[in-house]
Amino acid sequence: MHKLLTGAELITCDPAGRVLSGDLRVVDGRIAELGPGLAPGDAELVDLRGAWLMPGFVQTHIHLCQTLFRGMADDLALLDWLRTRIWPLEAAHDAESVYWSARLGVTELLLGGTTAILDMGTVHHTDSLFEACREGGIRASIGRAMMDRENEAGLSQPTERSLRGACDEADRWHDPGGRLRYAFAPRFVPSCTDELLLGVAREARARGCLIHTHASENREEIALVRRLTGRENIAHLHHLGLSGPDVCLAHCIHLSGAERALLAATGTRVLHCPSSNLKLGSGIAPIPELLDRGVHVSIGADGAPCNNRLDAFTELRLAALIQKPRLGPTAMPAATALSLATRGGAEALGIEAGSLEPGRLADLVALDPNAVTSLPAPDPVASLVYAASPACVTDVWIAGERVVADRQVLAWDMAETAAGVRAAAERVRRRAGL
Amino acid sequence: MHKLLTGAELITCDPAGRVLSGDLRVVDGRIAELGPGLAPGDAELVDLRGAWLMPGFVQTHIHLCQTLFRGMADDLALLDWLRTRIWPLEAAHDAESVYWSARLGVTELLLGGTTAILDMGTVHHTDSLFEACREGGIRASIGRAMMDRENEAGLSQPTERSLRGACDEADRWHDPGGRLRYAFAPRFVPSCTDELLLGVAREARARGCLIHTHASENREEIALVRRLTGRENIAHLHHLGLSGPDVCLAHCIHLSGAERALLAATGTRVLHCPSSNLKLGSGIAPIPELLDRGVHVSIGADGAPCNNRLDAFTELRLAALIQKPRLGPTAMPAATALSLATRGGAEALGIEAGSLEPGRLADLVALDPNAVTSLPAPDPVASLVYAASPACVTDVWIAGERVVADRQVLAWDMAETAAGVRAAAERVRRRAGL
Repeated sequence: MHKLLTGAELITCDPAGRVLSGDLRVVDGRIAELGPGLAPGDAELVDLRGAWLMPGFVQTHIHLCQTLFRGMADDLALLDWLRTRIWPLEAAHDAESVYWSARLGVTELLLGGTTAILDMGTVHHTDSLFEACREGGIRASIGRAMMDRENEAGLSQPTERSLRGACDEADRWHDPGGRLRYAFAPRFVPSCTDELLLGVAREARARGCLIHTHASENREEIALVRRLTGRENIAHLHHLGLSGPDVCLAHCIHLSGAERALLAATGTRVLHCPSSNLKLGSGIAPIPELLDRGVHVSIGADGAPCNNRLDAFTELRLAALIQKPRLGPTAMPAATALSLATRGGAEALGIEAGSLEPGRLADLVALDPNAVTSLPAPDPVASLVYAASPACVTDVWIAGERVVADRQVLAWDMAETAAGVRAAAERVRRRAGL
Repeated sequence: MHKLLTGAELITCDPAGRVLSGDLRVVDGRIAELGPGLAPGDAELVDLRGAWLMPGFVQTHIHLCQTLFRGMADDLALLDWLRTRIWPLEAAHDAESVYWSARLGVTELLLGGTTAILDMGTVHHTDSLFEACREGGIRASIGRAMMDRENEAGLSQPTERSLRGACDEADRWHDPGGRLRYAFAPRFVPSCTDELLLGVAREARARGCLIHTHASENREEIALVRRLTGRENIAHLHHLGLSGPDVCLAHCIHLSGAERALLAATGTRVLHCPSSNLKLGSGIAPIPELLDRGVHVSIGADGAPCNNRLDAFTELRLAALIQKPRLGPTAMPAATALSLATRGGAEALGIEAGSLEPGRLADLVALDPNAVTSLPAPDPVASLVYAASPACVTDVWIAGERVVADRQVLAWDMAETAAGVRAAAERVRRRAGL
């Protein structure tokens, strides 16, 4: 495969933050070279004159299985949100409804320029998530939500069954050379016994899979972890081996100094979800302070019921904005926020993406610089972070293959998606008694 | 004029927050009736089957003259922002560049479903703002920014000249029966002598015009006002007669208990600008506390350089989200946020708009319920507040006349707007030495 994308403004998101005019060559799914006036040779030409081209966004904390619950759980406190809505709704899912939930989520992600995700499913029907991602073409690391402590909605599974189920799914889907990978996803410490968490560390590492969980989102959660384990949350995870560059912790809002030091020393990944943290009243994660200490941070939209969007533009802009009242308007400048949403995410997922550089995966997003919010744009980076939205995205490629063309997802018919989603949402809502 | 919009889901934004399926009749620019199965008679029929219909958003704090500066003033502290960017750029404006700035702003506002605004201009070329709004068809209350204290960028005008200029503009443009009105707009206390502010109160009230200014956005500003006047900011304005339902104060973030009581007792309007307050690091306005005391609140996007969007969806969502970490996830529920952006704004502007009710102005917005972020939407109000974006808006009517059709502003050609904006932005930037 040989393509030449010509004439774009290349927003490289490389470490130097370069923006240059020119062409970009894709060979066999990767960026071969970029710069002005590249020779076409035998390439398939894609005319991008006047467009902006950037690397796809990487979102490292998503719950595709919850997209179907958008608008069913607003303005609620976290524990009510979980107990009266999210858990009963997850328990009411069937294999087909999980598929439609994921299909809607992947549609929104692709249309908004997100090309790779780290996703946590529910306790069943993980195959449906993989199937929707395979059809849509998105790069995804996915795992069942593992829970072996008692759960009032019946989501809990015996330790061995949860672990064996996850291992079976990993063996079925984990493909380090392809777009789909498995990530072991214990839900959070209050849902998981030490035995389960130790098993996760063992089985994930035996397979080269990431570990993905929630940590320190909420003060009640932290107090509960201390009661259950006698330790601070991050310290407890570390004690069980759940720290290091293969461990991805969503939220990390309420952290002691010792926990911050531990995150930095172990290279553990922090997944920042600003919309979700605001909407659930969780707080504002100390991201600039974590970055200053050398902690690795990336971003994600979390699930639709606590956002209610799944777009990287919203998260990127909020990641920059919410720190400023606390730390001043120069905190979290545009370029820093953009790097978390691109390179940062790719590093967390262990994929060679997140920037326009030779050798990187050709996960690419074209944007319309004549979108009304992009006028005028003396600085495309500031424009992307503070003004742009999914409405600016026109085309998306993953591994050099087009998955969005002229604002339409190529894999699916949108009317069919809408109909499937509406029927599944109604069925699940009724079954959950809401 | 007689139109019947048929078959929509009517999100009324009335005090009861009703949502109903049916038709809406427009006669002579106003809503005549709404409900299921209205008789067509001799009406022009508009088929809205499957669409959502809501009242247009009303944004009560906008600077159209700054739209041209989008992306030229990011990640700066407020005083640097004003002194090194906004004031020199405003000083460099010519009549034509103000027109293109306003035309771009009005385009973005209309495409995002905003049908009425309160706008503060710069010290010159106010006529250009009115002309762009007249062409675009938006409902707008506009005034020159009045400043008679020394200003390093040369924006200050002698007291009498500023006042006479504003009065001349008011006499030329203020039309209480039409879409365009004049609003006297002293910039903020540190820019204005007592003589100017007293003159504003006198001249505005003689003409039945609103008064629009900034207040208590920033701690340095507050300290400066105390040094200059010996009073608290809101108390000083009140002392000069600048309080009451005809006085609109943008921001009001840092308020004493006495000032909160004064705002409530006088019915003075608070204009809440959440994006701007985050981006400039100003703080989080205590909106739920003000509402609890009975203070009147509406919302606005402020200017493009401190946002960098001008859409009500972004402000609405943030108005709901930013209070929750401080006050809990049930603070500022969706319906409250939506009411500020619709009825609240209309009340501040003194226009009979902001809800779908008989007798109200037919300022209407149709939205696509099949937009990806609107699936599924068991509750259209939550969907509008947390998930929707300008991309959901398909058609807009003001006084019953269509101004946006199928996502295009009817008044202008978008390519011409883009070209005019780019040329003007480049000229102003060069002239300002940036």
